Amino acid sequence: MTTKRFVAAGHSDLDELYADFAAHDLQPLWEMKGLLTAAPAPRMVPFRWRTGDLMKLGQRAMELVPIDRGGDRRVLAFANPGLSGAPYATNSLWAAAQFLGPHEVAPAHRHSPAALRFVLEGSGVWTLVNGDPLHMGRGDLVLTPSMCFHQHHNPSPRSMVWLDVLDLPMIDFLDAIFFEEGPLDEVDQRTDPVSGSEINYAHPGIVPVGLYDPATPHSPLLVYRWADTDTALEAILGATGESAATVRFKDPTRAADVMPTMRCEMLRVRPRGELPPERQTGSRVVAVLAGGGTATVADQEYDLRAGDVYVIPSWATHAVAASDGQLDLFVTSDAPVLEALHVHRTEPAR
Amino acid sequence: MTTKRFVAAGHSDLDELYADFAAHDLQPLWEMKGLLTAAPAPRMVPFRWRTGDLMKLGQRAMELVPIDRGGDRRVLAFANPGLSGAPYATNSLWAAAQFLGPHEVAPAHRHSPAALRFVLEGSGVWTLVNGDPLHMGRGDLVLTPSMCFHQHHNPSPRSMVWLDVLDLPMIDFLDAIFFEEGPLDEVDQRTDPVSGSEINYAHPGIVPVGLYDPATPHSPLLVYRWADTDTALEAILGATGESAATVRFKDPTRAADVMPTMRCEMLRVRPRGELPPERQTGSRVVAVLAGGGTATVADQEYDLRAGDVYVIPSWATHAVAASDGQLDLFVTSDAPVLEALHVHRTEPAR
Amino acid sequence: MTTKRFVAAGHSDLDELYADFAAHDLQPLWEMKGLLTAAPAPRMVPFRWRTGDLMKLGQRAMELVPIDRGGDRRVLAFANPGLSGAPYATNSLWAAAQFLGPHEVAPAHRHSPAALRFVLEGSGVWTLVNGDPLHMGRGDLVLTPSMCFHQHHNPSPRSMVWLDVLDLPMIDFLDAIFFEEGPLDEVDQRTDPVSGSEINYAHPGIVPVGLYDPATPHSPLLVYRWADTDTALEAILGATGESAATVRFKDPTRAADVMPTMRCEMLRVRPRGELPPERQTGSRVVAVLAGGGTATVADQEYDLRAGDVYVIPSWATHAVAASDGQLDLFVTSDAPVLEALHVHRTEPAR
Amino acid sequence: MTTKRFVAAGHSDLDELYADFAAHDLQPLWEMKGLLTAAPAPRMVPFRWRTGDLMKLGQRAMELVPIDRGGDRRVLAFANPGLSGAPYATNSLWAAAQFLGPHEVAPAHRHSPAALRFVLEGSGVWTLVNGDPLHMGRGDLVLTPSMCFHQHHNPSPRSMVWLDVLDLPMIDFLDAIFFEEGPLDEVDQRTDPVSGSEINYAHPGIVPVGLYDPATPHSPLLVYRWADTDTALEAILGATGESAATVRFKDPTRAADVMPTMRCEMLRVRPRGELPPERQTGSRVVAVLAGGGTATVADQEYDLRAGDVYVIPSWATHAVAASDGQLDLFVTSDAPVLEALHVHRTEPAR
Repeated sequence: MTTKRFVAAGHSDLDELYADFAAHDLQPLWEMKGLLTAAPAPRMVPFRWRTGDLMKLGQRAMELVPIDRGGDRRVLAFANPGLSGAPYATNSLWAAAQFLGPHEVAPAHRHSPAALRFVLEGSGVWTLVNGDPLHMGRGDLVLTPSMCFHQHHNPSPRSMVWLDVLDLPMIDFLDAIFFEEGPLDEVDQRTDPVSGSEINYAHPGIVPVGLYDPATPHSPLLVYRWADTDTALEAILGATGESAATVRFKDPTRAADVMPTMRCEMLRVRPRGELPPERQTGSRVVAVLAGGGTATVADQEYDLRAGDVYVIPSWATHAVAASDGQLDLFVTSDAPVLEALHVHRTEPAR
Repeated sequence: MTTKRFVAAGHSDLDELYADFAAHDLQPLWEMKGLLTAAPAPRMVPFRWRTGDLMKLGQRAMELVPIDRGGDRRVLAFANPGLSGAPYATNSLWAAAQFLGPHEVAPAHRHSPAALRFVLEGSGVWTLVNGDPLHMGRGDLVLTPSMCFHQHHNPSPRSMVWLDVLDLPMIDFLDAIFFEEGPLDEVDQRTDPVSGSEINYAHPGIVPVGLYDPATPHSPLLVYRWADTDTALEAILGATGESAATVRFKDPTRAADVMPTMRCEMLRVRPRGELPPERQTGSRVVAVLAGGGTATVADQEYDLRAGDVYVIPSWATHAVAASDGQLDLFVTSDAPVLEALHVHRTEPAR
Repeated sequence: MTTKRFVAAGHSDLDELYADFAAHDLQPLWEMKGLLTAAPAPRMVPFRWRTGDLMKLGQRAMELVPIDRGGDRRVLAFANPGLSGAPYATNSLWAAAQFLGPHEVAPAHRHSPAALRFVLEGSGVWTLVNGDPLHMGRGDLVLTPSMCFHQHHNPSPRSMVWLDVLDLPMIDFLDAIFFEEGPLDEVDQRTDPVSGSEINYAHPGIVPVGLYDPATPHSPLLVYRWADTDTALEAILGATGESAATVRFKDPTRAADVMPTMRCEMLRVRPRGELPPERQTGSRVVAVLAGGGTATVADQEYDLRAGDVYVIPSWATHAVAASDGQLDLFVTSDAPVLEALHVHRTEPAR
Repeated sequence: MTTKRFVAAGHSDLDELYADFAAHDLQPLWEMKGLLTAAPAPRMVPFRWRTGDLMKLGQRAMELVPIDRGGDRRVLAFANPGLSGAPYATNSLWAAAQFLGPHEVAPAHRHSPAALRFVLEGSGVWTLVNGDPLHMGRGDLVLTPSMCFHQHHNPSPRSMVWLDVLDLPMIDFLDAIFFEEGPLDEVDQRTDPVSGSEINYAHPGIVPVGLYDPATPHSPLLVYRWADTDTALEAILGATGESAATVRFKDPTRAADVMPTMRCEMLRVRPRGELPPERQTGSRVVAVLAGGGTATVADQEYDLRAGDVYVIPSWATHAVAASDGQLDLFVTSDAPVLEALHVHRTEPAR
């Protein structure tokens, strides 16, 4: 017997039956509580990590921990307090801050979990994805899709930090993790100003003929530049006159998110503007790129500063209000997965 | 602090840093072991439940536990010994035996987890799906898709048992469970010999015009009859002359599995024939409909009898050999999910 | 000058300009009439071919014209009187009666235009499609898709006739016709009772695993048997109690018509029942399999007998009324093309 | 009898039969020649229209023909000499030069044929598509999709000319033409510098959330600016170092051409560079935006100047060589239709 044993107190026949169930690795549905809830009841909780704490701890880690110690990455994982000590920001998403010091290199590897990098501050690191050099600047979104080799190298004299989001908990749940080291002896430290992915795919509605393999399951555009995102948001808000707008980063070659497991969006809220309460199934990681204000997640209220990161559990009410400055929020979710499984729901809340 | 605290023994600065990490709900990636494995390392284990044990325990449950006690279903969940007491057969799939006594009714409810029923023995129960009456006979596959109301009623004088498989662990992992009771006062005990779903969709390549809403995410055919499955397998094996054949149950209106989260197949192995070793990512639940033989799962070998159920972890080698009788195996997997996320892999093994 | 010369009578400057236009192969839009009409203005007209005439003429052709004379097919094309002598039944569809005498063979060839065969009477011929032998019986629909080798052979002592429908005018319009003779020396005269296509794909919602190449642009099921069509229509009409029902023949592996260019449906109207007036863009060829009644196409009224064929121009009102017997109509249209181009419209008429 | 009568000279029985065929609107396949050719045998011929001739004739038309005379458009249709006087540039595509004088307005209408406008020279006209104002400048591609209201107005003191390409012959062939005048009394003469379509969709891989209806069958981006096209071509040629590159204009929201019936591409050939011989099924209209050189189409050789337009029949060999200047060619084809019908073929030639 390795399974849970249910107890039928004061009913010896039944209790004996339950013991026999357990002895045969069976469990009686009728004694289970909370298996099918009327609405989602996440174990993860709303939570916010403060940028100030993070930066100080990252600085100490840069001093004490060399990059080559275990995992080849100096990464601090956001660990949601509701998840029993697992190093996961939400049920399905890993989120972390990655620190790379001057002249450090995080060597190439690849894995089935997909990752994205979003730069909250600074610039100067290059991420190479299958050899394509992507410079990382503030506000840039960089993709390192499933099973693509990726490395980071910092040719600058300044350290740099960015947000990592991975679908790791999801791929782990599905028992589909594969990992492979890259070639150790050849570290490509290229610093091309523009990546091949941009040369070919960063044009509005214009693509090269015959280059892209439609079987590739991720966007061929591997970096979305802040200047473009900012331009898009300004244009849209200018036209609508509304106080908030959201743009989505997508595969320019088809009707698909940037990667099959994660959705990426940028929300801009004008000074003193609001995003009305809404909720959706699936979890979200939100990072504050600029500005300040307040986020309300279920019954939690967070005052926001640039660099803060917070998480929204499935079906929890979420609302945002900007303070006197304009608020820019980068939002990652597992929505493409819930949509593929046809269990995605969204609604205005209250 | 609610998260895991890492320890840097004999290095006081680092240990202090780790304590501060924990105090801020952060975890250092470089101290984590086994996060990214070279290949899948499932917690679930290969396991087999014996039909003989199951039937005896079910019989005792029928005597001691009325149907209306908690959950309105008399269900024994297969609990995989590797999953720390969770009532799940695999990481992503719930599997269970459901027992319904003479003249019992399991009243209507609906939920976002999708379910399927496969009849290993007996007949005489009707499952109503959104009011459509589906008679359940041996070898039949019955769908109760996500958010469809379903009830079971047994107008016969004999009890009946069948296999339930649900995507419950997956929908639970995604925090997307919704549940709703059906109307309690109107129990529809219809016993139509043929369902509306069959009237409209159980014809080879022929469908009614204008009836089906293409937005519906599951097959409009809700029952796959054993006679058809058997005919298909015989025809194919007769034509190929091989010793094994697999057919897939699918949505007749499009290129899709029966439901977005679960794949259903039937494998027939001729007497003394074999299914060569293979493996795939994602987990599987296998039920023996008829015949006997041996299943090898990783390093486990199971002799099989009709009614047995076993599970295959992700990426574990799987092989089957029939004994002197023909072996019919019903196989459910989470493959559609892994395909949607582009982390599905299959290969011959060894 | 090879183009049309417009005339501006009584306006010499303009007339001179028009002459210069013509000299440079240009035409002035503003002088064109009827280029853009408020609604479709087909050149093809409603028309009906009588089976009685057809059979007598076919009989005489069997006596006078051997099969090997030009084209290797004894085919009488239905020539729509509105199409200026072109051998086309509608603007986009070729329709014809094909006659094959006892022990005759129409040898293998293939072409980019796709064809279908519908048997209005008799049986006994085999059509081989890429070597797969399809027996042809009354009411059967047989596909010979684009670029598949096909031959017909008649091992029986009786002649046989069937309806051919091809997308030839469409493929000709697009200048995409390719044609190739099959191997002349090997005529495969197999008479297998069941085709491979049926062995694998004629099961309701059940398909073999790993057999079908999803890049193949047509249904892998190459014959739809009358017994199945009849069963489906009876089941549906029995359930709805209505006086008419339409089923569509489709690719059982995906959401697609049998072939990319042609839609096939069977309409059954109960004795004294009606199909209310409707219209759609695109043209249709209708063949009477059984029964009698009246078809109204625009302002034409046709009394129908088994074996008659009539055509419906785009956007013409169409209505059907059965006489005292049950009326079965086989309908082919170019609807998949109009749908792909997003110019398909349907509506009830009047 | 309204159909073609075949003659069987010297064979009276047969000749009588043929007369009876004709009397019953039937035609014998075996007497038809050239129905199924080994490869496409287009009636349209390779042809080139000279910009010099065109401009002079257009100027005269501007003087003699007011805009409101018939059709509300001052359009000179390119009439292919092979098409028996039809005003069509190819079998499936209408191409024309449209002239709009200072302060003229071509009022709003809509039709099921889709149109695109490509500006070969000049600027200053606005096209309104469903009210969205699109300024037209040199090298811009402007879409006026099927059933979208569109008008042109020229607030400038200069006349302007551009290339129109429509799928009119195709929609006419399918008898699916619908046409509707716009409201006559309200002419919107807006001159916004940026269109709503660009505000929302002219960002690389970035789109607004929740705005676009996925059922709309055309690109939501209605204008592709020359600056973007030029930038894309330069970037790609700079990276590859090759002498020619082609970019495709596409719907930024999905894997689709700009409209369901027409493909648009821009080919740049470096000075003295070449596009090697190739051929494809389907017809093409090519316009020279800049530079000079030679185009070879089947056995025709055309020296090219900016403003020239030439056409390529289906399956004809096509090659291009640039002279001392860089050559920019705008290419429209019916490829999306041939792809949808699965009769599209491409290959290097010779």
